[in-house]
Amino acid sequence: MKIAKVLGTVVSTQKTESLQGTKFLLVQRLDHQGQLLPEYDVAADCVGAGVDEWVLVSQGSAARQFRGYEQRPLDALIIAIIDTVSVSEGLVYTKRDGY
Amino acid sequence: MKIAKVLGTVVSTQKTESLQGTKFLLVQRLDHQGQLLPEYDVAADCVGAGVDEWVLVSQGSAARQFRGYEQRPLDALIIAIIDTVSVSEGLVYTKRDGY
Amino acid sequence: MKIAKVLGTVVSTQKTESLQGTKFLLVQRLDHQGQLLPEYDVAADCVGAGVDEWVLVSQGSAARQFRGYEQRPLDALIIAIIDTVSVSEGLVYTKRDGY
Amino acid sequence: MKIAKVLGTVVSTQKTESLQGTKFLLVQRLDHQGQLLPEYDVAADCVGAGVDEWVLVSQGSAARQFRGYEQRPLDALIIAIIDTVSVSEGLVYTKRDGY
Amino acid sequence: MKIAKVLGTVVSTQKTESLQGTKFLLVQRLDHQGQLLPEYDVAADCVGAGVDEWVLVSQGSAARQFRGYEQRPLDALIIAIIDTVSVSEGLVYTKRDGY
Repeated sequence: MKIAKVLGTVVSTQKTESLQGTKFLLVQRLDHQGQLLPEYDVAADCVGAGVDEWVLVSQGSAARQFRGYEQRPLDALIIAIIDTVSVSEGLVYTKRDGY
Repeated sequence: MKIAKVLGTVVSTQKTESLQGTKFLLVQRLDHQGQLLPEYDVAADCVGAGVDEWVLVSQGSAARQFRGYEQRPLDALIIAIIDTVSVSEGLVYTKRDGY
Repeated sequence: MKIAKVLGTVVSTQKTESLQGTKFLLVQRLDHQGQLLPEYDVAADCVGAGVDEWVLVSQGSAARQFRGYEQRPLDALIIAIIDTVSVSEGLVYTKRDGY
Repeated sequence: MKIAKVLGTVVSTQKTESLQGTKFLLVQRLDHQGQLLPEYDVAADCVGAGVDEWVLVSQGSAARQFRGYEQRPLDALIIAIIDTVSVSEGLVYTKRDGY
Repeated sequence: MKIAKVLGTVVSTQKTESLQGTKFLLVQRLDHQGQLLPEYDVAADCVGAGVDEWVLVSQGSAARQFRGYEQRPLDALIIAIIDTVSVSEGLVYTKRDGY
């Protein structure tokens, strides 16, 4: 999985029928030290993530391992809202303080 | 998923039998701010996208999650025509105005 | 899918049993304007592509979506020989003229 | 698979239900000579890896090939703790000595 | 598939149970002209490849398309030992002469 920060939303009315009701978030990738990377994903959200939150994004067929999503043409899914990222030197991120 | 802009079409008569009737579009990737990237995909289209429209492209096995496409050797599919991309600072793109 | 040009062949006698009879072609990727990229694939061929032809290459599990290939350990397949690539400004490639 | 070094942990309380009890480790990739690369993964751990250990990380659908993980939305899994990496010139790494 | 050269071995005793008996080789990628690339894979071997041999490596779910490997968490597999790589200008590689 990759760490990413929620930037905003992507809206589409003309899409495959199976995607009705899918919420698409625009997320920007972060490196392991919390720096923004020049990479993004448009990911389906199933955990209710909000703008500026740090999330875990799964790619590929993992994006369909969610009840009701098995046959949606998705290749990226937000699977978790991150509370903390910690390494031996200390905390990289904690949700309480933001970053 | 990635954001991309439709550039044109790819036509082939000599292809696997299962691909009969599949429409292939040439799309160029955009970054999260709408700038063209030096990356493209040839993606199957199932939403009727037109040249210059912004679309969402799914890659990998997601490209076969469409009725009748389950056994086609596809690794990229246009799953939606984008209406808007918006971030906290405002709209990145809206279909009405183009870009 | 990616656009690629057939460069040559890769031959192997010592391979998994399921690969008996599989033809491997060496293909070099092209960008969306037809320029050679420093990327290649060794792809199984199921459409009879020849050297210098432009082809569509599918990657990942798509490479096994061909009758009899379902259980071969393949991650790249030539799925089509390209006739034309066209964008709004005109033809990028047509098979008749070569490039 | 890729060689990686365990850096720390990622904790999340708000996640898909299927991920309850999954331990997420932050790992940084190493090249084939043991140098740190600017790439990381957040991977599920099923072998009890600890900080600073070298591990093998599998990506994609391989991350769900573990008893009980078949339907979790995971795309990276630590599948082994490395004892030694050796090439013809000698040992690149041995767990006993660290690196 | 990618062309790679076998560099050495990776040994692990602490791994998922399904991986018992799997041989892991360290391979370095080659480009289409036989030059070493700064990319490697740790791949399972099912063809008995030896150090310095050129091999074909399959990635992703293809790595599990081998009898008995269907449920192992593998994302890279050596599927063939290469005899020759040839392009229209001549041989890039032949196993007899090495490179």
